[in-house]
Parts: sequence; C-alpha cells; structure tokens
Amino acid sequence: MAKIYGFKFVLVLVLSILINLFFLFDHFVYKDTELSWSKAAAREAELVASISCSGHGRAYLDGIPFQGEPICECNSCYGGKDCSEVLTECLADADSGDPLFLEPFWMQHAASSAVVVAGWHRMSYRFDDYSSISEELEKHIRQLHAVIGNAVTDGRFILFGAGSTQLLNAALFGLSLDDSPSPANIVASIPFYPLYEAQTKYFNSMEFKWKGNASLWKNRSDSSGTFVEFVTSPNNPDGRLMKQVLKGPSSKTIFDHAYYWPHFSAIPTAADEDLMIFTLSKLTGHAGSRFGWAFVRDENIYKRMQMYISLSSMSVSRDTQLRALKLLKVVLKENGKDLFEFGPKTMRNRWERISRSFSSSKRFSFRNLSLNIAIIFKISQDHHQRLLTYSWPSAAYAWIKCERAEDQDCNAVLKTASIIGRGGSIFNAESRYVRLSLIKSQDDFDLLIQNIDALVSKEGGVAYI
Amino acid sequence: MAKIYGFKFVLVLVLSILINLFFLFDHFVYKDTELSWSKAAAREAELVASISCSGHGRAYLDGIPFQGEPICECNSCYGGKDCSEVLTECLADADSGDPLFLEPFWMQHAASSAVVVAGWHRMSYRFDDYSSISEELEKHIRQLHAVIGNAVTDGRFILFGAGSTQLLNAALFGLSLDDSPSPANIVASIPFYPLYEAQTKYFNSMEFKWKGNASLWKNRSDSSGTFVEFVTSPNNPDGRLMKQVLKGPSSKTIFDHAYYWPHFSAIPTAADEDLMIFTLSKLTGHAGSRFGWAFVRDENIYKRMQMYISLSSMSVSRDTQLRALKLLKVVLKENGKDLFEFGPKTMRNRWERISRSFSSSKRFSFRNLSLNIAIIFKISQDHHQRLLTYSWPSAAYAWIKCERAEDQDCNAVLKTASIIGRGGSIFNAESRYVRLSLIKSQDDFDLLIQNIDALVSKEGGVAYI
Repeated sequence: MAKIYGFKFVLVLVLSILINLFFLFDHFVYKDTELSWSKAAAREAELVASISCSGHGRAYLDGIPFQGEPICECNSCYGGKDCSEVLTECLADADSGDPLFLEPFWMQHAASSAVVVAGWHRMSYRFDDYSSISEELEKHIRQLHAVIGNAVTDGRFILFGAGSTQLLNAALFGLSLDDSPSPANIVASIPFYPLYEAQTKYFNSMEFKWKGNASLWKNRSDSSGTFVEFVTSPNNPDGRLMKQVLKGPSSKTIFDHAYYWPHFSAIPTAADEDLMIFTLSKLTGHAGSRFGWAFVRDENIYKRMQMYISLSSMSVSRDTQLRALKLLKVVLKENGKDLFEFGPKTMRNRWERISRSFSSSKRFSFRNLSLNIAIIFKISQDHHQRLLTYSWPSAAYAWIKCERAEDQDCNAVLKTASIIGRGGSIFNAESRYVRLSLIKSQDDFDLLIQNIDALVSKEGGVAYI
Repeated sequence: MAKIYGFKFVLVLVLSILINLFFLFDHFVYKDTELSWSKAAAREAELVASISCSGHGRAYLDGIPFQGEPICECNSCYGGKDCSEVLTECLADADSGDPLFLEPFWMQHAASSAVVVAGWHRMSYRFDDYSSISEELEKHIRQLHAVIGNAVTDGRFILFGAGSTQLLNAALFGLSLDDSPSPANIVASIPFYPLYEAQTKYFNSMEFKWKGNASLWKNRSDSSGTFVEFVTSPNNPDGRLMKQVLKGPSSKTIFDHAYYWPHFSAIPTAADEDLMIFTLSKLTGHAGSRFGWAFVRDENIYKRMQMYISLSSMSVSRDTQLRALKLLKVVLKENGKDLFEFGPKTMRNRWERISRSFSSSKRFSFRNLSLNIAIIFKISQDHHQRLLTYSWPSAAYAWIKCERAEDQDCNAVLKTASIIGRGGSIFNAESRYVRLSLIKSQDDFDLLIQNIDALVSKEGGVAYI
C-alpha cells in the first residue's frame, strides 16, 4: 500500500515538477524575447486605443487628457464622454473632403499598420545618400503604381511633398520659372479645385499670373506667352476624367491625380504625363499626415521643383515618410487586394445609396457616372478588370444641381434641409451647383442620406443630367 | 517510515503544486496585460535597433534591406557592413548644421521617447476643434519656454510649420502683405543665414524685394516704404546675440531664434518680440522631423501667416506633431534637467576643445565668446544660473577667419587640410571667413579636431578677434 501510495505520489510529483520546468522555461525563454524600450510606448498606445467611444469617435495618444486619459473625440453629431449621445439639431456636414471612410480599414489592420518611432529615428537633414527622400518609400510608391496601373513611372524623377498641396505649388513655380520675360499664364477648367487660384494669387509672383478659365485661351495667339494648366483627373468636384484644354508648344500641364485610384474612378489607362501629382490623403485616407509625391519627366523642371521644396520646408518629415512606408506595405499586400476591395466597395455602396436618394427627385439633378464608366470598363486591360468592377460607378463627391429656376443658390436650399455642401461658386461654377462629400465617416454619410431623403420626399420625379 | 516518506512527499508535492499555481497565475494574468496589435511593430523596431553598427552608425526601420534586415548607415568616414572600418583619405565635413550631437541623448532615453503610431492615428485634415495644431503640443511648447525662460509667449498666437523654414516664408509673406502699393524691402545684417535671401528671390513676389544688408538702410527716408528685417539671434554663423538694425514705424522684424537654447547660448533675457520663430531641429536635434513654431503678437499678421501655411501645405503632419509632443515630454521632465545638462555640456566641451586647437594659431583667428557671455551671465536672473553655467561659453558654429593676406579664400585653405567648412561668401561675408559646424556627430567632430590640430601644428602663435 505504501509502495503504491508512494508510486502515485512520485508520479504526481514528477508531473508537477515537469509542469514547473515547462513554466520555468516558458517564463525565462519567453522573457528573453520580450520587449524592452518600446514596451511602455506600446502599452500607452494600446491603452488609448482601448478607450471606448461607442463606435462614434476615438481617443488619440495626443488627445487632451482628462484625469490622465485622453478624452474621446466624437464624430460630428455625437457627443458625451463616450460619444454615445446623438446630438439633436445637428447639420449633416458634407463640406470637406476628409477621407475618413478609410478609417475602419486601418482599425481592421491595426497590427500590420502600426509603427514604432524610436527617439533617435532619422534626426538628420539628409538620408545616407544625401537625398531627403526614403529610397524604400520611393520603391514602394513605384511598385504601387505598377500594380494598380494608374501611372507610368519609368523615366521620371520623383519628388515628395507635404501633401499634394506643396507639390502643386512646386509645380506652379517649376513650370513658370523659365527664361521668358513675361509671367506664365495660369489656367484651369471650370469647375476646378479652388486652391489653384488661391495659391497663384497669394504668392503674387512675377513669374506667373492667374488667367482663369482655360477654355477662354484655346484660340490664343503664339505671342500670348507660356500657359500652365491645372488639370484634375478625376476632377474635383465633378469626378470626370479630364484632359488638358490647351495644347501646343507654349502650354504645359500639371496633372493632379489625387483621385485617380480605384476608390473613386475607373482606371482606364495608366497616366503617362510629364508632370503628375498624387497624394496619400485620398489613397489611404491619411490626410493628416500631409504626404504626396510627384513624377516629373523633365530634369530641369524637376530641379526647379526640388528647389521650391527645399526653400519652402527643406524636405518632408521623416516621421511621415516612415509611416507612409508602413501604410504602403499594408496596401501592397497581395497586390493591393485588401485596400482596393474595401475602398472601392465602400465608395460604390455610398454612390449607389446617394443615387437612390436623388433618383426620385426632379428638383435636384445628380450626375450619373455609370454610362461613362461602363464604356471605359470595356476598353480597359484585363488585369484591371477586378478593380474596375468595384469602381463602377463611384466618385469622391456628388455634384448636385438645383434645377428649379428659383433655386439659384443651391447650397442655401440644401442648408434648409440641414445639409452643408460646398457651393458651386467656390469651384468657379454656378451657385446652382453644390458638391457633397461622400468620403467622410460613415456617421456623416448616414446623416447626409437621412437628410437628403427627407428633403427629396417633399417632391417627386427623376432628373438626370 | 511510509508515513514519514509520505509526509515529505506530500510536502514536496504541495510545494510543487503551489509553484505550479504561481506560474499558472503569472502566465495567464501576465498574458492578459500583454500587448496585442502593437507588438509586431514594437518587435520590429527593437530588432532594427539591436543591429550593431559599432557605434559609428545605426540601422533604421526604413533603411534599405539586405537579406531582410536594414543595413547599417555609417557616420561619415566609417564604412563596412557594421561601420567598423575607418575610411582613409576622408574629409572632415563640418559644413552642415546637422544637429546629430543630440543623437546619443535620445538613445539614452529610448523608453521614454519612443512613440507608437496607430494605423488610424489622426487621419483627418482637422483636429477635433477644427484647428490643425495639437493643443497638447502647444501647451508643452509654451511650458518649455516658461521653464527655460527664453521667450515670453503670453498674449501671442502660435503657428506650427514644417521646420522654421516654412515659418520664415510665412513671416515674409505675413509682414509684406499689407495695403502698401510698393513691395516691402527685405534685409538682414551680414553675415546672415542664406535662406532669407534665397527664398525672397525665388518667390519673386510683387509683395517684397530683396534689399541686402540692413545697415545700408539705417538712414533711409520715410518714403522708402516698409522694411522687413530678418534677425537671427544667436546669429548663424557667428553666434552673436542680435538686435534689429532698423527701427521706426515702417520697419518690422522677424526674429529667428533657432539657436536661442542653452546648448548654444546664454539666455540673458526672455525674448519678448512681436514675431519669434523657433525650431525643434536645434532644440532636440530632430532636424529630419521638420517641425517649428512661431509666436505672433498681431492677429492680422498671424492670420496672413496662417493663410500661407494653409496654401503651402495645409498644415503640419500629425505624425510629426505626435512625435514632437513625445519628445517635449521627455525634455520637460524635471524642468528640462536631462536635456539641458546634456546639450550645453556637450557643446561647451566641443567649444573648449576647438578653442584649444586654434589657441596656438596666428594664421586663423577664432572668435572667443567667453567675455561676451560672462557679462551676460552677471546680469542674468537667478533661476537661469544653472543653465548659464553650462552654456558658458558655447555656440553651434565656429566662425573662423584666415588672417594671412594671401589666404583670401579661407575655405580653400581649410580644404588643403581635409576640412570642409561653409565659406563666408555664402553668408554674404568675406571669403576670408569660414563657418565650422560643431553640432554634428562625435565622429565628425573628432575628425575635425584631428585635422585642425594637424593644420595648426604647422604654424604657431595666438590670434583672437
């Protein structure tokens, strides 16, 4: 009995000791691969991320703290400590092009998109090769264009800027600074993104002069000097794929391709222009990061643009470049499968939803892109087919027209229904037009649709332009 | 016997099981507080940080990978896979103002200075309060100035920019854009930081005109129009504390206080000017982050500068703002004790070392700042005394003069001794002067001293200016 008793005991004891050994091993070997200096920062970030804001807001690491913790920053029309309160009498704000529709994507890809910036990360003015751009980031950007097929990047210099904004400035100077004694004439086709005019006028440089609508200069004489045309394609506000209006040896074009991604457009061909500008804002949704890039064919123009960047901010923040690289690595996984399913799908759904809302309206016309893009779809190359099916049809903005004679100020009409749009006059178009942003948060979009439905339900009929 | 045998067994078994329970608890409870989504990024950062570059270089997360791991980026004059090879016939590069002398400080403060950026961190164009600057960061910046006593920030608006560079541009436009029909006259005192002239000329705006040396306009008539004077204090290149040369109602001043920190200067009084510009580059050494700020007293000028920032880049990267906040939190610990001991001590040591090298020279004169600063020291307020003792004497650059009649091109003379400086003509001064940067890495500084010693050993005697 004692023997059996002892045997069982020995067995249990040996087992227990084995388990102890396992834990001991686990504890110490595991600890060896544990984190050291990055741990506190990681914990801090996860703690902030775990603050519940009811799905209608989020807390940020650099948020304003209340009792030691950053407070929730709520989406518009939500309030309260945890953003759970719906604010009444709140306007549906569809004004800005804030690309928050992509925020859920990054929350879903938390692990792969996080980045740890060490205190000593790239303190220098220069990279190791004396440039101020990350070679790795450049490589990933070129690869992305090859995968999506939206731009030919071979044989072109690349420039980084603080968003497309800084690069548009750089291009303006880069193309205007030539040996010509008279200032370059700067133009764009109506409706156009208002920054072009605003920056040209603010700088008030002897190198260029704002000359308004491009079409007015189609039949200009050869002595009119150099023309620089801003072309946004797809266009902001109306989503159309655009070509330059002015041609000939004295005209140069700045192609702003901020929206030339499958989220907002079909990609019929790879853009192959001399000067093309892209931005992270509308690709990954990181508008706050201020990161863009330009491809430039001509070396002299590239150098003049580089001089502009250098004199205006030296270069683009390394912190931003590091983060952009991490984000693009996520984007490029499986040839862009995840982002270019999420983005175009979300935008198509929104586009269909808002089309439906306006479909019964005679008072408001809604530019339907489907026909346009269906044709493009057919001529497109095979390997873009998957992306195209998603982006058919969609656009970043709805460009609405008020059809009634008395509704001359369309924005004011929408305002009566608690909708804030961006009036046509801002884009140099008639006030009869309004741009409604479809790329903001889901909360913003839902409220927009709710208010449109209420407005449209007061009348009847269909009108397409 | 069996009983004793059993009792011992039971004791050991109970003990073993208790240990099991402890480990079990440790394992699961510990695991519960473990990291989730941030872990991979943290591991990746620590792995890169652990790559050995022999103390003469470092690997970065966004470095060019070789066999999956980023390669070492070596300090100048070091090479090889792990930067252990000393490159022969390598020049001592004391040209740029790359503030890498602070890199070791951040390596020593790895845990507190690391920051984890979540994939969804601040994607919007705007902060919650519709501004584009972090309130928390603003608060920390104002607190820092109060602690150091180098600027009065009350009653002033704050602007963020991509380094002081962008803010200098913003100030140029902000002060020039007024109702006056004639362009503002832009001036600076020789020797001056060349960006002022370069940016003024590049923009070639109708709002302003470069007019060179400020002193030439001291006795101007009232009808000469508005003057905008750039004042760098302490001055780049020569380290002197400066005041504006032009006074009166038609003159405005942009104070560039990039170097007004205890690392480089005594802090006799808190700067109390209408327009003051600071930068992170020369405070924490993060030049690559491109972050600066300006304090502006007049609301209209502030708004015009804000418009410049908005049109030129919309705002400053949120990634950069987040990182700057983390860095300033480290800086502010114990009222700046750590950084403002490390920085001034390092710079004082370097200053003393280079003074010693030139002390026996008659060929080169070396502007000794100690007398200057000793007086300032006496008039300073008590609470700055600790900081002042460290910054006495020091400066970011040595401003060297070649005394021999035949050494008109001083930079060329230094080049023969394998020293690269920045020639006086770049600062609009005589070529007889050269700026030597003292704020680069320790490797750069050591080689500089070595080459200076070799050069000076060929002659004898002392010359001070």
